Amino acid sequence: MLNQNMLQMGRKRSVIREIFEFSRARANTVGAENVYDFSLGNPSIPAPKEVEEAIVSTLQSGDSLSVHGYTSAGGADWARAAIAASLGRRFHTEIGKDDLYLTCGASAALSAVFRALTIGPHTQFVAIAPFFPEYRYYVGEAKLVVAQADTKHFQIDLVALENAITEDTQAVIVNSPNNPTGVIYTEETLLGLSALLSRKSAEYAHTIYIVSDEPYRELVYDGAVTPYIPHFYKSTIVCYSYSKALSIPGERIGYVLIPREAENARDVYDAVAGGARSLGYSCAPALFQAVAARCADVKPDIEAYRKNREALYNGLAALGYECVKPSGAFYLFVKAPGGDADAFCQNARLRDVFMVPGVEFGYPTNMRVSYCVAPETIERALPVFGELIREFQR
Amino acid sequence: MLNQNMLQMGRKRSVIREIFEFSRARANTVGAENVYDFSLGNPSIPAPKEVEEAIVSTLQSGDSLSVHGYTSAGGADWARAAIAASLGRRFHTEIGKDDLYLTCGASAALSAVFRALTIGPHTQFVAIAPFFPEYRYYVGEAKLVVAQADTKHFQIDLVALENAITEDTQAVIVNSPNNPTGVIYTEETLLGLSALLSRKSAEYAHTIYIVSDEPYRELVYDGAVTPYIPHFYKSTIVCYSYSKALSIPGERIGYVLIPREAENARDVYDAVAGGARSLGYSCAPALFQAVAARCADVKPDIEAYRKNREALYNGLAALGYECVKPSGAFYLFVKAPGGDADAFCQNARLRDVFMVPGVEFGYPTNMRVSYCVAPETIERALPVFGELIREFQR
Repeated sequence: MLNQNMLQMGRKRSVIREIFEFSRARANTVGAENVYDFSLGNPSIPAPKEVEEAIVSTLQSGDSLSVHGYTSAGGADWARAAIAASLGRRFHTEIGKDDLYLTCGASAALSAVFRALTIGPHTQFVAIAPFFPEYRYYVGEAKLVVAQADTKHFQIDLVALENAITEDTQAVIVNSPNNPTGVIYTEETLLGLSALLSRKSAEYAHTIYIVSDEPYRELVYDGAVTPYIPHFYKSTIVCYSYSKALSIPGERIGYVLIPREAENARDVYDAVAGGARSLGYSCAPALFQAVAARCADVKPDIEAYRKNREALYNGLAALGYECVKPSGAFYLFVKAPGGDADAFCQNARLRDVFMVPGVEFGYPTNMRVSYCVAPETIERALPVFGELIREFQR
Repeated sequence: MLNQNMLQMGRKRSVIREIFEFSRARANTVGAENVYDFSLGNPSIPAPKEVEEAIVSTLQSGDSLSVHGYTSAGGADWARAAIAASLGRRFHTEIGKDDLYLTCGASAALSAVFRALTIGPHTQFVAIAPFFPEYRYYVGEAKLVVAQADTKHFQIDLVALENAITEDTQAVIVNSPNNPTGVIYTEETLLGLSALLSRKSAEYAHTIYIVSDEPYRELVYDGAVTPYIPHFYKSTIVCYSYSKALSIPGERIGYVLIPREAENARDVYDAVAGGARSLGYSCAPALFQAVAARCADVKPDIEAYRKNREALYNGLAALGYECVKPSGAFYLFVKAPGGDADAFCQNARLRDVFMVPGVEFGYPTNMRVSYCVAPETIERALPVFGELIREFQR
């Protein structure tokens, strides 16, 4: 007499976690230095010093009741105001505290937004392959429809996307920089996307929103910039997490930003608040609301990721692996020699190299290789990657 | 094209919050010393010093990545082990880390448990009046059925409860010490409850669980003890929050405890994990997992609440108000003179006395008066309470 979906969902560990736990067990057996774990999207750069400073100064700044007490459900006014002001400066637009709803990370943000936009079990959200697998859970009773990928540059295949949109489509999920490809959607892509969604919204006589999941927004390289999507399409709901930029994924702090220019913005905000309430969220963790506010202008130092990216990308390319060189996040999405990433990853496991096969992301020919690892891991793993591809070529 | 339930849920502020915000506005107008706000259940005792010590020593103890990184979805092993060991000692029973699932407070715990136990929209959960109003939201698509109260002692009216149970009942929600009455369910009550649920479970050939919501467990006075309900009924799922005992309600840390002796315990655990995943919970806030673990044996110093309770209870009784003297939590549930608590509270508002009318809790004749306030608030409010009852008696 238990909910069978919940039971399966609780039992079926995320494949990514499962790989990680297996690799940890292997590390205990054969020694951590002999295990090459590229499976997890866990930041490997310590939190910037401003995070600890913010914790300490928050503890010193107020009495315990105001530091650790309940805030408004959407977050403390002063914290939202500080974050809003920083975002407004950065994106050259007007953002106020009442446009922000602070959440327990991006997972909570997305879940609340999907509840707000779900008007029945027929509701559809479109994800663009390859995509973050937990979206399947976050959409709740609505249906996740997958638009096929642009296999050349991992931008958006607008024809495939148009085919995936129906009159039940409430939003298209955009994730840029992308997990797993690391690709940033270009202005050209976003202009095309905006034109398509404007046309389809008119055709179906209701707004199709963009839900922009952007935890990797600040993790960009070589001078790349993540475009602010509401500048291209006003009905964009931004879901953000501080997990990656501040290296605090366990602390669960993020937000939903509903730009005031979005269609029906105030109602969307209220429905997101209702969505969060229906999921049992009381408020985002109070101390980390303060940390996010105090660190609103902190730029992460991602030099270590940049170096890893160069080392891993160049190393794999030299060995003959194929991969679109990404501009952001901390993943490479590498084509498996032979095109069966599941088989390739299984084989790699036998040599203690751990990657996530793309089938999880709706793209079975490639595998995700995270480079949020120690540089030595890359250095020592490259010869093994060499053996793996040669073995395949034999 | 928004979910109308979510929209209404987001717009309809909690009545308690609304009263609180009105009272805050009044404080700005007439001065805080002239406003008597008994509306909120927000701890007024600062967090014990061990909380800040635990934060500081956690920051010093490990590198930033392990302190702030993702934990397992159910919480870090070491934190669960420390909490489980403390609970086992306290309740003289075997509790292991794998019996605990750490959550973002009791609201998340309850929401995940209800999802786990909901097998369709016909599923029913029974709340016993008077009850915490947010249960209505936490049950999701299931139905909340209200069993009428024992109006004499605010224990459980077992006949009324039996009448409320049907074959669709999956659990009875028990909240002891109770919000809003402050009453602790006695051993006699729990023996009767256990006998009733055993009988009904047999009659309907499925286990009816107890969901025990116990954030006030440690807030008890005059040597009272909150019984450990699984000792009375093995299929009890415990939902706990550190909000009240450690005075950290904004930090969102709590747990679900599924005792191993509960029917189908491992499956329930997995379904709760699935429930949490379906709601977008990744893990409980990492730093406060560590705080909860390090403070597992901390006993709160609730002398200030005890004094407030004496002052307010004795003061109101002397004025002629009727109230069951509670043994726990930090609320009095006072009978409104005349029996219309809504009207009485409205009238009290005109004199800047703020309480929550009982209709919110499914019990319209009484009003909740929180004594987690400054002692001066009670002292200065008592003459106003005197005027209010005299005015009514005229």
